[in-house]
Amino acid sequence: MNADISFQDIQRAAERIQAIVRPTPVMTSRSFDAVAGVSAFFKCENFQRGGAFKIRGASNFVYSIPKEQLGRGVVGYSSGNHAQAVAIAAASVGIPATLVMPEDAPKSKLEATRGYGARVITYDRMSGNREAIGRKISEETGATLIPPFDHPWIIAGQGTAALEFLSEVPDLDALVIPIGGGGLISGCAIAAKALRPSIRILGVEPEDGNDTLLSLRAGARTEIPMPQSIADGLRATKPGAITFPIVQKYVEDIILVSDREIRDAMKFLMTRLKIVVEPSGAVTAAALQCHKLPAGLKRVGAILSGGNVDLEFLQTL
Amino acid sequence: MNADISFQDIQRAAERIQAIVRPTPVMTSRSFDAVAGVSAFFKCENFQRGGAFKIRGASNFVYSIPKEQLGRGVVGYSSGNHAQAVAIAAASVGIPATLVMPEDAPKSKLEATRGYGARVITYDRMSGNREAIGRKISEETGATLIPPFDHPWIIAGQGTAALEFLSEVPDLDALVIPIGGGGLISGCAIAAKALRPSIRILGVEPEDGNDTLLSLRAGARTEIPMPQSIADGLRATKPGAITFPIVQKYVEDIILVSDREIRDAMKFLMTRLKIVVEPSGAVTAAALQCHKLPAGLKRVGAILSGGNVDLEFLQTL
Repeated sequence: MNADISFQDIQRAAERIQAIVRPTPVMTSRSFDAVAGVSAFFKCENFQRGGAFKIRGASNFVYSIPKEQLGRGVVGYSSGNHAQAVAIAAASVGIPATLVMPEDAPKSKLEATRGYGARVITYDRMSGNREAIGRKISEETGATLIPPFDHPWIIAGQGTAALEFLSEVPDLDALVIPIGGGGLISGCAIAAKALRPSIRILGVEPEDGNDTLLSLRAGARTEIPMPQSIADGLRATKPGAITFPIVQKYVEDIILVSDREIRDAMKFLMTRLKIVVEPSGAVTAAALQCHKLPAGLKRVGAILSGGNVDLEFLQTL
Repeated sequence: MNADISFQDIQRAAERIQAIVRPTPVMTSRSFDAVAGVSAFFKCENFQRGGAFKIRGASNFVYSIPKEQLGRGVVGYSSGNHAQAVAIAAASVGIPATLVMPEDAPKSKLEATRGYGARVITYDRMSGNREAIGRKISEETGATLIPPFDHPWIIAGQGTAALEFLSEVPDLDALVIPIGGGGLISGCAIAAKALRPSIRILGVEPEDGNDTLLSLRAGARTEIPMPQSIADGLRATKPGAITFPIVQKYVEDIILVSDREIRDAMKFLMTRLKIVVEPSGAVTAAALQCHKLPAGLKRVGAILSGGNVDLEFLQTL
């Protein structure tokens, strides 16, 4: 399989998934802009089907599986949002889905994944190896393994978020995007740079989930201990083999945000924009709110990547 | 002043206020529909400027004040959302605004009103008479008194919400609308019935704020004790003199919802639709979620009238 992902791959992905993906609105807020000192445009993937952008990549993957293989179903591993996305995409074509999820994943994500008809297998995040469990199930059942980020079909699917974003707001100076494994930022960077070569791509990681920042500095993929950040979707320990070279090529800088900054951003989004964004989705708003962008940016697009958060967590804000 | 409000008055209001009012999105949710058993369309006035529909009426009022009178400013009384709306509308034309607000109004509403540059005077909700305080200020300063609901300019302004809603989703079977003093439902009923005579208009009140239901049954405006419902924007004790005949003419039925049902609806809206709706705004969703609609409705439009709620309150859900 060719790991080179082209703009055309992303355009084709957008056509392939258009029936299942919801075009999400872009929101603005005078009060946020006054605090951040820029004109912020929020791409609300928290309103996406399954509550996060993940359906873009997962459905592009499922719809790209050869027909003769599709019937044996799919298996995925995920802290939550990718799991829901795989479950929805599998259900849309009537194939079985098995998801390997950490036992401490937000309850809402576990329940929602089961609610879409998938089988859920939990594991201990600290001791278990979700990739190995997923591979074993794939080998035993013939189900196709859908990795959470490090695959061209996933990356091309996630890139449709930027395709859509720039069709809604074409004249952005920069795109600010959360980084877990790097699937979203890789796809979005390819799409955005093709549409608008001058656009600047900035990534955001939690302070203790800085594997991509360290990898960029080292010039090679660097592994870190399991992050403990509240941004549960960004707890990757190492950039992907396919995503990292794309990040190296396109991402200008990585901004780190603390759990406290993420909480403050979530509060602002709830009380002023009236939207619920999960910690992993709010890191971009946190970066803007805390004035962590490079100087000189005026019109900044930020992806709010998801909204799946337990009420219990919101009560701790 | 002519209390007959025509469809043309509402169309003219829409033109008058289009620069200050934000067209709000209509949201749908498969998971909500599955629970409610209807196709629900939510008009998200929680995303409106000032966080509620009130800017529609307030700005239509301010922009209708004769020029020679405008410079002396405006005064309003409100549990919160109308206050913010008057403050924003006044600021937009550079005139002073004074707002009389209950001292126990949500902190966010008091702060936001002051944040828009208005002077805020608080009073005790149980003992004070906000109308009298407002009238006194108006007499002393020459400021124009902007009542919260019972005025043709306010009603015409609020009606623009339905004008916009039906342009977005024309083929609704019913509109479900919160009732406080009746300004929103009156204006919306006039607009909706003109555009789509077959549409059914349903009101929603909190259980202990059932002044309009009792008034409809009695055939005359009936006063109730001050409601204690969590729906702080719907604590009117008596329908308006102008709004009540309009409600009598157009509103088919009134649905009552409990505080518990309102809380459940707010939770669903937060965790599944990812939006923050205040108790007064969530009463319509509660009515749908609890299957309180008349039988036979398929496509139901519900106005989520506002989103101004303290984080402290959300923590009690």
